[in-house]
Amino acid sequence: MTEDFRSVEALVFDMFGTVVDWRESVAADISSFLSVHLPGVDPREFADAWRAEYQPSMARVRRGDRPFVRLDVLHRENLDTVLDGFGFDPASVPAHLLDEVNLAWHRLDPWPDAVAGLTRLKDRFIVAPLSNANVRLALDVAKRARLPWDAILGAEVAGAYKPDPAAYLNTADVLGLEPSQVAMVAAHNGDLEAAGKLGLRTVFVRRPTEHGPGQTSDLEPSGPWDIVAEDFVDLADQIG
Amino acid sequence: MTEDFRSVEALVFDMFGTVVDWRESVAADISSFLSVHLPGVDPREFADAWRAEYQPSMARVRRGDRPFVRLDVLHRENLDTVLDGFGFDPASVPAHLLDEVNLAWHRLDPWPDAVAGLTRLKDRFIVAPLSNANVRLALDVAKRARLPWDAILGAEVAGAYKPDPAAYLNTADVLGLEPSQVAMVAAHNGDLEAAGKLGLRTVFVRRPTEHGPGQTSDLEPSGPWDIVAEDFVDLADQIG
Repeated sequence: MTEDFRSVEALVFDMFGTVVDWRESVAADISSFLSVHLPGVDPREFADAWRAEYQPSMARVRRGDRPFVRLDVLHRENLDTVLDGFGFDPASVPAHLLDEVNLAWHRLDPWPDAVAGLTRLKDRFIVAPLSNANVRLALDVAKRARLPWDAILGAEVAGAYKPDPAAYLNTADVLGLEPSQVAMVAAHNGDLEAAGKLGLRTVFVRRPTEHGPGQTSDLEPSGPWDIVAEDFVDLADQIG
Repeated sequence: MTEDFRSVEALVFDMFGTVVDWRESVAADISSFLSVHLPGVDPREFADAWRAEYQPSMARVRRGDRPFVRLDVLHRENLDTVLDGFGFDPASVPAHLLDEVNLAWHRLDPWPDAVAGLTRLKDRFIVAPLSNANVRLALDVAKRARLPWDAILGAEVAGAYKPDPAAYLNTADVLGLEPSQVAMVAAHNGDLEAAGKLGLRTVFVRRPTEHGPGQTSDLEPSGPWDIVAEDFVDLADQIG
């Protein structure tokens, strides 16, 4: 462990891609809807298209073009957009059916090492998501997957979406900690870059198949992160 | 179970007195400080005096006389007040020593049935504190006592102190639930009265020694609460 890491009291985790395999989970969850309403569309292609609307929809909040709304609302709006893009009129089915489809994001499966790694890390550190997920989304994922969080933090509690500095700084503040006492754990260099600039410690975890077998982004750490780990069990071996 | 209770998805819990025995815990925690600095003062009397400042200090926030500040801040200010009341000048010791004394509220022990009851209730319901405790306080208590919360909610997340309606309504909103889908669990009739008026379901749990053997308040339910339970295990027997 680096010397800088000895003052760390809390590990906060990116969720989508870092803790859970959103792509395979969403694809599996929406396949029955697609088979009825958009037969022939590959569920993974649909999941990728849905996820592609994620950053643009949060960017409108970060720019101040609209007030903060929770991610469930953005996911639901983005679902309409994506259905439309595939040539399907979302108004042709009852809204409550699409509300249910939207809950695919509440049923994400963790990577195989996540529960075992978090359980070990929890003995020594406060562990909590610092995700752009809203509280209920992260709570539902955790309850279903038995992720042993000490609290559900993130964008909704902080009132800001990552990589807005407020997302990181307000989370440290809620924990009663200085930024240097908090480590951001993520599979995304951009998340760690934003956190590191604010004084948080940084942990890169490799998730080379988050975007499927042809993934080209975030395969390697691109900054001077405090720790690089193969997965959460490896992280526990290094600092647990 | 009453018919009205069948739509409940989340149980939210008052913490001080309902989940944890704050009086005996604070008394035990501060006894070594008192033995040095205020010998002869009964630790339970000191705990009672400290707790007596709790409602007045929150009332100033609820009235809008000051912006919302987390409970740790109020407890720390109240500690100075109480020390002064016992004839001890808080400025006569280093502030960091009193900051440490203030953490007595982070080391509260649960009632003996709490962990077992919550563990069973968690199988069927979302379980979370809806306490006036700030997140870190509730988190520290839960981590130490192994309370199996699904999330840490309450005044700090809601931005309001109970019994302000916003404390209850914002908590239901964060959970993505209607008030009628949330049940407030408390040993205090006043808390249930405020929650019930807003449409939350209500569970009274008897804690007849919260204030010691001579307790005179909240010995019996005083309203038409949906459920009355002897403790959390009894509650799990009734609805788990």
